[in-house]
Amino acid sequence: MALSARNRLTGTVTSVEKDDIMAEVVVELGGGQEITSTITRGSADRLDLREGDEVAAVIKASEVMIDSE
Amino acid sequence: MALSARNRLTGTVTSVEKDDIMAEVVVELGGGQEITSTITRGSADRLDLREGDEVAAVIKASEVMIDSE
Amino acid sequence: MALSARNRLTGTVTSVEKDDIMAEVVVELGGGQEITSTITRGSADRLDLREGDEVAAVIKASEVMIDSE
Amino acid sequence: MALSARNRLTGTVTSVEKDDIMAEVVVELGGGQEITSTITRGSADRLDLREGDEVAAVIKASEVMIDSE
Amino acid sequence: MALSARNRLTGTVTSVEKDDIMAEVVVELGGGQEITSTITRGSADRLDLREGDEVAAVIKASEVMIDSE
Amino acid sequence: MALSARNRLTGTVTSVEKDDIMAEVVVELGGGQEITSTITRGSADRLDLREGDEVAAVIKASEVMIDSE
Repeated sequence: MALSARNRLTGTVTSVEKDDIMAEVVVELGGGQEITSTITRGSADRLDLREGDEVAAVIKASEVMIDSE
Repeated sequence: MALSARNRLTGTVTSVEKDDIMAEVVVELGGGQEITSTITRGSADRLDLREGDEVAAVIKASEVMIDSE
Repeated sequence: MALSARNRLTGTVTSVEKDDIMAEVVVELGGGQEITSTITRGSADRLDLREGDEVAAVIKASEVMIDSE
Repeated sequence: MALSARNRLTGTVTSVEKDDIMAEVVVELGGGQEITSTITRGSADRLDLREGDEVAAVIKASEVMIDSE
Repeated sequence: MALSARNRLTGTVTSVEKDDIMAEVVVELGGGQEITSTITRGSADRLDLREGDEVAAVIKASEVMIDSE
Repeated sequence: MALSARNRLTGTVTSVEKDDIMAEVVVELGGGQEITSTITRGSADRLDLREGDEVAAVIKASEVMIDSE
């Protein structure tokens, strides 16, 4: 990968929901965890995202918080 | 959990590195994936983060991109 | 608090507006200032946010800009 | 203001700390609350930020989470 | 400019699309490049954004990734 | 491109500066505009970024503000 974003979590799309401008995508990661993403509807359409697709959730390290509770 | 952030990935801290202002924390998630976070050094000190700690990586859904490659 | 996010501004919800995917929440802070948040509708529903709720607006330090004008 | 960012919280700088690349700025808001920002050292130098400066903390609504605890 | 955000790319609005909560704005930069922004509908209305407006796209340095592919 | 991020601005790296944890990268875009990025030093090393490299600055649409001044 040539993208600087440090985080790339692979998984399977389990849900894609769209309204006019935004889309919400849920990805099931290994180990029983899942991650939810909001992207533009334009991007969801361009990538033609559908349930069952193998994708990566990509996250810049500066966007990740730690909860030590 | 009472926080709006949709994503909360649990794991184990495998590395904490600090400079004057920033800190970088690596968390091993289940299933062989890991996530890297940059937070302020002040927060890393306040939470007293150390290797081996059980933590959650918390990420707002709007910060998650999808790569369908 | 065990979350790394440095900023936690307490106040009272004065407005919650929802569409299919997103929600907009306005929080009145002390001292006559207010803060607006966009979260997913799913999170707004899960937290059952309503006008009058006492909440905190939580913001990672890396997301705060300074205007010295 | 002509900037789309919804949030503009005014206050007084109480601390500026710099390392080579990053700077951390603390702003005291009215009502006993404070907010911490990390910006580049280059921006802190360009704005010549110092304790006592009257500034605004500017935050895009998409970066604000809600904690209803 | 007195805002800490390092990036300010000037251009011309070529599209504004709104739904209930969000708006999507496309700005054509010089040199044949364009940039897409999602802001709140409230901000798009307040700024009265329209095709043909001369604007700047403002981006905090911490939000920019590098792809060296 | 298979990444959901809407914005991909191509240009030439004109500066790379590193400290222990962070790196600052400046990219000259066409049309006399430039963009500054802060990424982790780890990513800057992994991509082996140097002056003169042809790269893209990648930005999620939700991180872009509009200034209509």
